Order: sequence, then C-alpha cells, then structure tokens
Amino acid sequence: MPQNQTSSTELQPRVFAVRWENGFCVLLDQTKLPKEEVYLNCTRYDEVIDAMKTLSVRGAPALGVAGAYACALAIQQALQLPLLRRKDFLEQAFLELENARPTAVNLKWAIDQMRAYVCSSSEISSSVFEDVLTAARKLHEDDIRCNRLIAEYGAKSLPERGTVLTCCNTGDLATGGIGTAFGVLREGFRQGKITHVYACETRPVLQGLRLTSWELEKSGIPFTVVCDNMVASLMHEGKVGCVVTGADRIVANGDVANKIGTYQIAVLAHYHRIPFLVAAPFSTFDLEKISGSEIPIEERHENEVLGILGANRPAFQLSTHNPAFDVTPHHLISKIISDRGVVDRPNVETVRTLFSLNQKF
Amino acid sequence: MPQNQTSSTELQPRVFAVRWENGFCVLLDQTKLPKEEVYLNCTRYDEVIDAMKTLSVRGAPALGVAGAYACALAIQQALQLPLLRRKDFLEQAFLELENARPTAVNLKWAIDQMRAYVCSSSEISSSVFEDVLTAARKLHEDDIRCNRLIAEYGAKSLPERGTVLTCCNTGDLATGGIGTAFGVLREGFRQGKITHVYACETRPVLQGLRLTSWELEKSGIPFTVVCDNMVASLMHEGKVGCVVTGADRIVANGDVANKIGTYQIAVLAHYHRIPFLVAAPFSTFDLEKISGSEIPIEERHENEVLGILGANRPAFQLSTHNPAFDVTPHHLISKIISDRGVVDRPNVETVRTLFSLNQKF
Repeated sequence: MPQNQTSSTELQPRVFAVRWENGFCVLLDQTKLPKEEVYLNCTRYDEVIDAMKTLSVRGAPALGVAGAYACALAIQQALQLPLLRRKDFLEQAFLELENARPTAVNLKWAIDQMRAYVCSSSEISSSVFEDVLTAARKLHEDDIRCNRLIAEYGAKSLPERGTVLTCCNTGDLATGGIGTAFGVLREGFRQGKITHVYACETRPVLQGLRLTSWELEKSGIPFTVVCDNMVASLMHEGKVGCVVTGADRIVANGDVANKIGTYQIAVLAHYHRIPFLVAAPFSTFDLEKISGSEIPIEERHENEVLGILGANRPAFQLSTHNPAFDVTPHHLISKIISDRGVVDRPNVETVRTLFSLNQKF
Repeated sequence: MPQNQTSSTELQPRVFAVRWENGFCVLLDQTKLPKEEVYLNCTRYDEVIDAMKTLSVRGAPALGVAGAYACALAIQQALQLPLLRRKDFLEQAFLELENARPTAVNLKWAIDQMRAYVCSSSEISSSVFEDVLTAARKLHEDDIRCNRLIAEYGAKSLPERGTVLTCCNTGDLATGGIGTAFGVLREGFRQGKITHVYACETRPVLQGLRLTSWELEKSGIPFTVVCDNMVASLMHEGKVGCVVTGADRIVANGDVANKIGTYQIAVLAHYHRIPFLVAAPFSTFDLEKISGSEIPIEERHENEVLGILGANRPAFQLSTHNPAFDVTPHHLISKIISDRGVVDRPNVETVRTLFSLNQKF
C-alpha cells in the first residue's frame, strides 16, 4: 500500500480501490457496492482484466494503477515459463491489458511505462519484476499526490459558496487516491464552499447512485441522488451552482471524453449559465489526438441497460444502444483542473500553454 | 368498449388501457408490462384510485377516461347507500378521484364533467348512473377520435423523412385510443416519414423501456431504447431528426408540463436545432393557469428511484428527489399538435388563436 506523504489528514483516501499487498493486486469489487465491501485478491493479470471488463475496478486513474500492478502480476506469471517464452507472453499480456478498456487513456499510459522496463531488459528475470513493481507503486503514489493537488486547485476554482452537481464516480473508487472531481468536492466541502452535492445516478451502471453516494456518505457531505433526466429541472430551479466532473481522456484542443451523459450536462449547464469544471490528472491528457472526434468510444453490452427489467424482461427483442462515454467539446467547458494547474476556457492554445509550462515534469 | 367509427384500420388502438365491460372498469395493469398482459377488474372507485397511484393506469388522457368510468363505479357504490347519504359519498369520492394525480389536468377535467350530472340531479338514482356511464363512454369515444386527429395533424407536421426521439409513453397505454405523440409516430411511420424511433427509457418508472418499447414492437416500428443520459450524444451524432412528446398540462402561454426529463430534452433539441413537437388533446389545455410555474408538480415516493438497487440497497440513508414532471417553457417548443389544429411557435397569442377558432366545439 502506498505511503501517505502529506501532513493533511483531510486529503487521505478513505478506501483503496486498488492496492498491492502480499504479492496480490487487491481490488475492491465495486459491483457489490454500496451494500457490501468485498475485495478481490488477483494473482494473475487476466483476473485484473476480467475485473476491468466487469467494472469491479473502473475510473480512468484507477484503471491506470490497476493496469500497472497487473503488469507486475504478468511478470510473476512469465517467471514460471521457460526463459525464451517470457517476452512473447508479456507482449501478449500487455496488449490485452491496454485493450481491456479503450476510452480512458490512463490505462495505455500506465502499460506503456511498464512495457519500457520489459523492452529495455535483455531477459525477463526477477529483477525486472522488482523494477516494474517499484514503478507501479511510484505511479500509484504519484496518482495520490496528483489527486491532492487537483483537490486544492479545484477548490480554489469553485464559486464562493453553493451546491455542486456531479455525475458518475470520481472518488477513492475511481483513482489511486482521493479522486479527481470528488477530491474537489471533499476539499470544497472542508473549506465551506460546498453546501450540498447533487449526484446523477448515471445509468446504466449507476456509478452515481451506488458509488458516489457511498463515498459522499463516508465523507459526511450532504447529498441528493437524482435520475439523469432531472438535471435540467434542478438547474432551472436554481439548485445547481456549479458542475464538476472527471474525464477519461482530454485531447489537444481541450475536448473531453467522459462517462455517457457528461456532454448532455455540459449543454444544460451552458444553457443555464452554470460553470462546468472538469478535473483530471495530467495523465488523462492525450495530445496525440487533435480533437474529441478521434477518441474511441467503447460500446458495452446491452445487458447493462436491459438488466434493469429483471424478471420483467419481455419475450421480444429489445434493441438498445450502450456507449459508455461521450465527448464534451471544449467550448462548453469553463475550466479543466489538473494537478499541474488550471486551464481556463480550454482550447488548443490554453492546453498547449499548460504543457509548455510543465515541460520540467 | 367504445365502437370504432373510422374506416381506416391503420389508426385503431391495438389494446385498451381502460375499458368498461360488464359493469367493471377494466384496466390493463401496466406495472406488469412488458412481460405480462394482466387486467384488473375494478368494481369500486377506490380500486381505480389505487391503480392510478401505483401507475397501473397512467398517462394524462387515460387518467381522464379511467376517472370518468370510476365516477360511474362510485355511483354504483352510492346506490347501495341510503338515499340521503349518496350525495355526500359522491362528493367525497369525486374529490379523492380528482386528487389522485395532481399534475395531469385531464383527470380533473373528466371528473368535473361527471360531477355536473350528480349536481344537476335532485337525487342519486339509477338514471344518474346511466347518464354518467353514457357520458364516460362518450368521453372515451371522443378521446379515440381526438387521438386519430392528432395523429393526422402530427404526421403532416413531421419533417419529410427521418428519425424521431420520444420519451415516456404516449400510446394506447396512455390514452383511450391510439395515443398522442405515439399516434403521430404510428401515422408518420405508416406514411413513410419515420424510419426509426429512439425511445428514452424514462427513469425512474421506465415508461419508455417497459411500455413504449412494447407498443413499438406491436406496431412494427424499428426502434432503439436509450438511457435518458444518451440523448445529447444521439443528437450530436445526427441521429435525431425530430422530437415528439406528449403533455400532462398545457397552460395559456403555451408552457407544457410533461414527464420529468421533457424539459431537458427540449433544451438539448434547441441546442442541436432539432424540431421539438408536443402532441396532446384539447382536454390537456388549462387556460386558467397563465404560465407553467403555476402547475403543481407531483413529488412521488423515493422507492421509485431507489428500487433499482434491489438487494444491493445500503444500510445508510440514501436521499433522493422524485418529481414526476417538469415544465417546458413555450419558447423551446416548435409546435403543439392538438385534435383541433396545430399551434406554431406556441405563446399566449397563438394558443388564444387556437381557442378562438374552436369556440364552436
């Protein structure tokens, strides 16, 4: 488990969605929340892939951390094979890992870093395992540190005092640390700037109703969960002072891919003249893509949508559509809050400025 | 059961949500759809109220028809009482009926018509029952006729050829006949103007996923059900040619109360420059209210929202909000399609013009 490196007790994770413990990659099984806190002890990289695909672990930064630890597991597995087969095995494993979820860029970013240790080694020995595990732990610690910085920058960017609406889940459960948008909520609440949080339930998988409510409860923040079709009505009633969401990928022009429904909330915030903030670590930026239209959008199984019918499912074929993400164009975003500073009115110039100021990192 | 008075086989209801049969008010129990077609035989007005409150029968025009038949049941019950107690009993019954669901105006409108027969009778005898039953049947037949006219006017108002998005349920199940917005879809599809329908699932009660899908399937119209947070994404992809919804109440300035989420879709249609049509019978207009802010919005039980968690419901208190309706301001509405003509760009003037042209009715 990573060491906490801050004196502030306010910005500690309350739970770890992902951790390395006794040679296992331990994942909190988020499909069992909010009722039960069940942990999965993964000893193989493909168990982590299964957990990613079933959404036992999810959230762009948490996928990055889990992916990095899964690389360490893959190397443990490779060490059981004859020396000559190890590199091929790892090449395949890393490819499967980076493709487990296509939209969030943090996963590929983490795998690429671990892959570098494998590629630069003439043979796969236990020292490569040690190097990769050390790098994965550092990536996790960096995520915790980034989360804390995002929370601090984000709280400064909030309006003086009011309510916030968020969607999906962006907290301890979605990251290595205290979260992205959720960290901003925690710090904003601690500073007295946030009085109440509205959490969209976030169909079809209900990350808002199941996960964000669980984290809000643990954080002692007053909250109300609403259905995704109640957002405009709340905004019209003046109940939403600000929107804060996370991101799965931010491209060069400031367009943001995030959980399905985010774009819709951004349009509604624009119409009602409500600030719309996006919080994400630097690792969520992908400057190789110029605009949001280049981001691959994962289409997930129809059962996520239709499962809600339970035993009431009809005999006839019910056709549905299940994109897990959508793209919010930069002109609908007021600010992007990263661990390396805030991008006001994101566009290709302001995003480039953030990067040019941070070349030292 | 009402007699069909048209030569067109195209515009017949496929199922009756409400009918009078052998002295019963028969309701299709919509909570059991789409899996099972179960009918409730109501012999008492309070059974109809229960069915309204549990949403076994719902939809503004269907509530009007069911309310009218429930008045006939109340008179049957009154006839079992001593003569002097009958009027008091009916006064109470009619009050309970009109308050069963507060937002849709059609219910109060229907009850008021039936109440007139009771008020104008010196005593409550079986002839009052006959008068009220005849009036209720006529109200039902009128609704079927109005639905047909709305479908015809509405199909003319559709763009030449394309897809339509709708929300909630506005078909056979929501009316006495073929529906309001849904009738427009059926007729538009029959005329070849509609190629595909997107139905919003309509949380929390899923009238779109459970009921509209069932009616689309029966009508042979190609369709896709989407979660309520996928609307903007569909619109951005150019998949929505036009939006058509129903209404629960339309006031003097053209503001429309309808299922929660309608306002949100109207804002999204406005942003994406997509026509937004509302289809409703004349009985849905309430000119006593000047603007939408005067419409009472029913707040329903939190279990409708939280029931989705099933056995996964947590031990902690989950706070939610459950307004059943919202108000769409007239300036977001392209056309209101009624059985007495189409109001283009609804506002206080154009709505008044529709009424002044229809004083003969």
